[in-house]
Amino acid sequence: MKAGIYGAAGYTGLELIGLLNQHPEFEICFATSDNYAGQKYQGITFSTSADADASTVDLVFLCTPHGVSAPLAARSLDAGAKVVDLSADLRMKTADAYQQWYGHTHPVPALLPTPYGLPELNRPNLIRQNCIANPGCYPTTTLLGLAPLAKAKAIRAGANLIVDAKSGVSGAGRQPKVDILFSEVFGDFKPYNVGRKHRHVGEIEQELHALNPNLGTLIFSPHLIPIDRGLLATSYVPLAEGWTLENVRQIYESAYADEPLVTLLPAGETARVKEVANTNGAMISLHAATPDTVIVVSVLDNLRKGAASQAVQNANLMLNLPETMGLLI
Amino acid sequence: MKAGIYGAAGYTGLELIGLLNQHPEFEICFATSDNYAGQKYQGITFSTSADADASTVDLVFLCTPHGVSAPLAARSLDAGAKVVDLSADLRMKTADAYQQWYGHTHPVPALLPTPYGLPELNRPNLIRQNCIANPGCYPTTTLLGLAPLAKAKAIRAGANLIVDAKSGVSGAGRQPKVDILFSEVFGDFKPYNVGRKHRHVGEIEQELHALNPNLGTLIFSPHLIPIDRGLLATSYVPLAEGWTLENVRQIYESAYADEPLVTLLPAGETARVKEVANTNGAMISLHAATPDTVIVVSVLDNLRKGAASQAVQNANLMLNLPETMGLLI
Amino acid sequence: MKAGIYGAAGYTGLELIGLLNQHPEFEICFATSDNYAGQKYQGITFSTSADADASTVDLVFLCTPHGVSAPLAARSLDAGAKVVDLSADLRMKTADAYQQWYGHTHPVPALLPTPYGLPELNRPNLIRQNCIANPGCYPTTTLLGLAPLAKAKAIRAGANLIVDAKSGVSGAGRQPKVDILFSEVFGDFKPYNVGRKHRHVGEIEQELHALNPNLGTLIFSPHLIPIDRGLLATSYVPLAEGWTLENVRQIYESAYADEPLVTLLPAGETARVKEVANTNGAMISLHAATPDTVIVVSVLDNLRKGAASQAVQNANLMLNLPETMGLLI
Amino acid sequence: MKAGIYGAAGYTGLELIGLLNQHPEFEICFATSDNYAGQKYQGITFSTSADADASTVDLVFLCTPHGVSAPLAARSLDAGAKVVDLSADLRMKTADAYQQWYGHTHPVPALLPTPYGLPELNRPNLIRQNCIANPGCYPTTTLLGLAPLAKAKAIRAGANLIVDAKSGVSGAGRQPKVDILFSEVFGDFKPYNVGRKHRHVGEIEQELHALNPNLGTLIFSPHLIPIDRGLLATSYVPLAEGWTLENVRQIYESAYADEPLVTLLPAGETARVKEVANTNGAMISLHAATPDTVIVVSVLDNLRKGAASQAVQNANLMLNLPETMGLLI
Repeated sequence: MKAGIYGAAGYTGLELIGLLNQHPEFEICFATSDNYAGQKYQGITFSTSADADASTVDLVFLCTPHGVSAPLAARSLDAGAKVVDLSADLRMKTADAYQQWYGHTHPVPALLPTPYGLPELNRPNLIRQNCIANPGCYPTTTLLGLAPLAKAKAIRAGANLIVDAKSGVSGAGRQPKVDILFSEVFGDFKPYNVGRKHRHVGEIEQELHALNPNLGTLIFSPHLIPIDRGLLATSYVPLAEGWTLENVRQIYESAYADEPLVTLLPAGETARVKEVANTNGAMISLHAATPDTVIVVSVLDNLRKGAASQAVQNANLMLNLPETMGLLI
Repeated sequence: MKAGIYGAAGYTGLELIGLLNQHPEFEICFATSDNYAGQKYQGITFSTSADADASTVDLVFLCTPHGVSAPLAARSLDAGAKVVDLSADLRMKTADAYQQWYGHTHPVPALLPTPYGLPELNRPNLIRQNCIANPGCYPTTTLLGLAPLAKAKAIRAGANLIVDAKSGVSGAGRQPKVDILFSEVFGDFKPYNVGRKHRHVGEIEQELHALNPNLGTLIFSPHLIPIDRGLLATSYVPLAEGWTLENVRQIYESAYADEPLVTLLPAGETARVKEVANTNGAMISLHAATPDTVIVVSVLDNLRKGAASQAVQNANLMLNLPETMGLLI
Repeated sequence: MKAGIYGAAGYTGLELIGLLNQHPEFEICFATSDNYAGQKYQGITFSTSADADASTVDLVFLCTPHGVSAPLAARSLDAGAKVVDLSADLRMKTADAYQQWYGHTHPVPALLPTPYGLPELNRPNLIRQNCIANPGCYPTTTLLGLAPLAKAKAIRAGANLIVDAKSGVSGAGRQPKVDILFSEVFGDFKPYNVGRKHRHVGEIEQELHALNPNLGTLIFSPHLIPIDRGLLATSYVPLAEGWTLENVRQIYESAYADEPLVTLLPAGETARVKEVANTNGAMISLHAATPDTVIVVSVLDNLRKGAASQAVQNANLMLNLPETMGLLI
Repeated sequence: MKAGIYGAAGYTGLELIGLLNQHPEFEICFATSDNYAGQKYQGITFSTSADADASTVDLVFLCTPHGVSAPLAARSLDAGAKVVDLSADLRMKTADAYQQWYGHTHPVPALLPTPYGLPELNRPNLIRQNCIANPGCYPTTTLLGLAPLAKAKAIRAGANLIVDAKSGVSGAGRQPKVDILFSEVFGDFKPYNVGRKHRHVGEIEQELHALNPNLGTLIFSPHLIPIDRGLLATSYVPLAEGWTLENVRQIYESAYADEPLVTLLPAGETARVKEVANTNGAMISLHAATPDTVIVVSVLDNLRKGAASQAVQNANLMLNLPETMGLLI
């Protein structure tokens, strides 16, 4: 299979190059970066986006910024390539929701709604698709952590859902800015956009409410961890009547028993970043808080299952390859 | 004033040596460490605890482990020295509560209750005292963050209080253990003792309920940040009827307007570890979440305002020195 | 092929478990750790060393400390297993040299000399061998960097050779000690055992002088980098008459052209830790200093090419498997 | 004394603000930053450079880039202010040397030569001066380490001098660039500009040769440490006939016995970054290598004794204040 990558010199794009180089079926035909054109990474030479031709490949990965991706998706589809969009452009179901969270008109509303590429939740809608919206890193972590409870109606209807999330710095991208310089971040730890300000709030709520429309409001506080990669979400879940940690554990066991990329840790163990950094999988641990509250800790590598390896997982589904091809090492 | 330090070669003890060396009124007469006896730190030579004589000093700081501190406090008081105990031994009001959280009988129940040394909350009870329980690092951070709301009855009665806390690694002490080796912690981020397992839960609830007995259950999740020092708590507070972020801000403004060691950040700014590391102060920022929930971020250096500099602040009060002497640099 | 690992819960042993789990031909039959017996890592349950039986496997890897390894090697050979010893016990050619650098009598002098397992220098002597001494991390880095010059007699005879080396903290092992606690190392950088004190000096000189007996004295200064893994050596090489950076480059190009695990970087690029961390290869860059001096920068992952993956490379040779089987990902 | 800072929002400028805020005699009258104008740091509001008026202050600190500083120095002197230039503009003695190392014509050659502000070497020429060139961070570290030997003619004439230096990332400045982003540097360690490429080579050689014109060529290899602050130089010094580690130690003892900001460590101790980070002093340790070579390890905080606190030390001398006023805490 021939693949192209747009925006390949950001952290997500570089990660994709590494993954596709090891994938038995994909060949990278182009990897664009207007800033780095002519330079090499892992044997791949970056080209300008003008020099890339989507009609020469089976599938393109869009690692371009939101606002740029959607028009590129439309052109690539017209050229006959399948599209995995790693930006936020195709994640919201409606142009109105996009405008609400991203602050500008959707560039190509005709593309909406696009199937949401979280295979563990939405697999049947992804197979042989032509265009998929790859989820955000915070939404993937949070949704893998909460979906079994949401589907089972185990969350108290209408109650606030508190998710305290922490991400490594690569999640902030590779554009040089003062606040992600090494000397600024070293030795620090801080929250940002707490409450309901982060754009991923809209995406998480949309998907949670699709699973269970009676859920309450999401309170979401991201923090910056002084590490390069890894994302951990600590979710505080008020349980509906009749639910206990024990039957909560059972629904996670059935939800993830056959998922090769999601590991439910046994009771007594706690999910942590180091176990998933540089891997393609997510891990989840469940913890007692009070009789009516459980704590779910979910963790993954923001550049892998939170971005690039999930994009490959989606690409495998779109091209009817084994879903985890190239992802289980 | 002559001071002695027991258990001076742990992180808290080393920090105290640095602070007392700069303090205009204190002279360190002994600093004990059975492991490091004979070695020097900042001009002070460690002695064995057997060689230390509390009767030669005005005040002793106990940086010894819980279980060891209380008997040492009793002996030091008998010898005529005032005592600041930085361990947990004197923090709980009753021997029963101590047994519940620490799993063994209190070694010297006659010392209970001891005044709780959080000056911003309890100043009148600390002046000229002979014995003070220095608060834990998590409790100091959490209580400075929540006390104004608790006192004002602004927290919804009976509702769960969720505090998601994160600490630098020095909080785990200086005893060599595999899980705090550099190569274990580097690149990692993880929760531990989440829910209601951490011993500081008892201490925080005791003090919060003293301010307002109608408060609900504390859910408290500590995490380990891969940095050496700093502690940040993100508290999710359900508001009582009639309270808004605006009037919440007013009560913090009055609570801390005259507190030299606590800074309330203006709206739009966010508390972060780097601003308080290696300082003696705490910082607090307030954030909107939903109409009925505010987020309080409180932050301090776990070895300073979370331990050693708060101990000096208490010692100043006990000896009727200016409270912040040696602490405002 | 059946493999056993003694001392499997240290950093080198854990790394070996990971590598062997991915190796197409090896099956781990036992992995011993008296401290962690009964616990699991990557699907392998640690057993006590008493429960391990070398006669049940084709090859054992010894990740045990020096002093312990040699007797275990003798017993394992007697039991019919091949042996890769990752400790220092079998690296020195004579018991006298061992005594000089390790300060005690060699436990099993009959095993000396053992073939030195640096395949890029010594491949013909390793194939189908029964027992191999796996080189140290600093020696591997330094020797890969200097061997082409030493063999070509391009180093000025008798001149001091200065190697300024820097290692990640995992090189110090996993036994808990205060000086490798996270809070001690974080934010620090320091040399240790500078000059001719580090035990690896003897090993490096032995191998360099075997390539060219006219070489001068090694001055070797290791430093501790606050990262978990990676090792970089900056070597300052006085050139013999007639040598220039250009012809130096040529001998490296021929030395490493066909070595899959050693990369010579093109002129203008500089070797760095990040490119080799978590890989099985080494990288080398060459730099002009003065007309009669070149600087060689060599770099590898101390737990991989500096220990565990080199052990697998040796094991492949001993068992007549393709040398890089399981190592090129 | 009234002080102004030009270029105050870089790391050196921010550090100066902190130091001057604690200095008993200085008042900051302006701190310019065109990018951050209107924002506050430690109580000081940045102004544009256009709004700053050097005629209103006793002394200005120039934290502006090289090329910008010299004209600003000239204008400030004309306006009646004394000048400490922290850039490289005034460090070289001649415009030719400046051109050689900085690649462009000197902007104000009439200012050359300017007294070189390394008080421990050059104190008599700094008192009551109007304009001083504040040394670079690598030169300060290297010169404090080598000057006693150079002055005593203890270094073998004509022999190459090898200095392997390592710096924290703040030395690279606060302008956002990809290669100093957190995620690029985290987990890495690398040399850069090795040999004789770094601009500080010219400055170090100029000052060493002023102490002893018979010294040989400097080989200088800087490396980037993944920490925010701190600089360590490992210098390999070939000794002249008759010199030994013992008499070398004596000349360091006399050189630094009365220097409050330079500490010679006792035999057996090793200089390290952590001891000097966030302090105004330097530390030096001496180590045996071979009978004719010693190793000098020198260390300081690149933003303090390597930049801002040395600038304050110079300012104190220029204004005839006690040299260490505000610097001994």
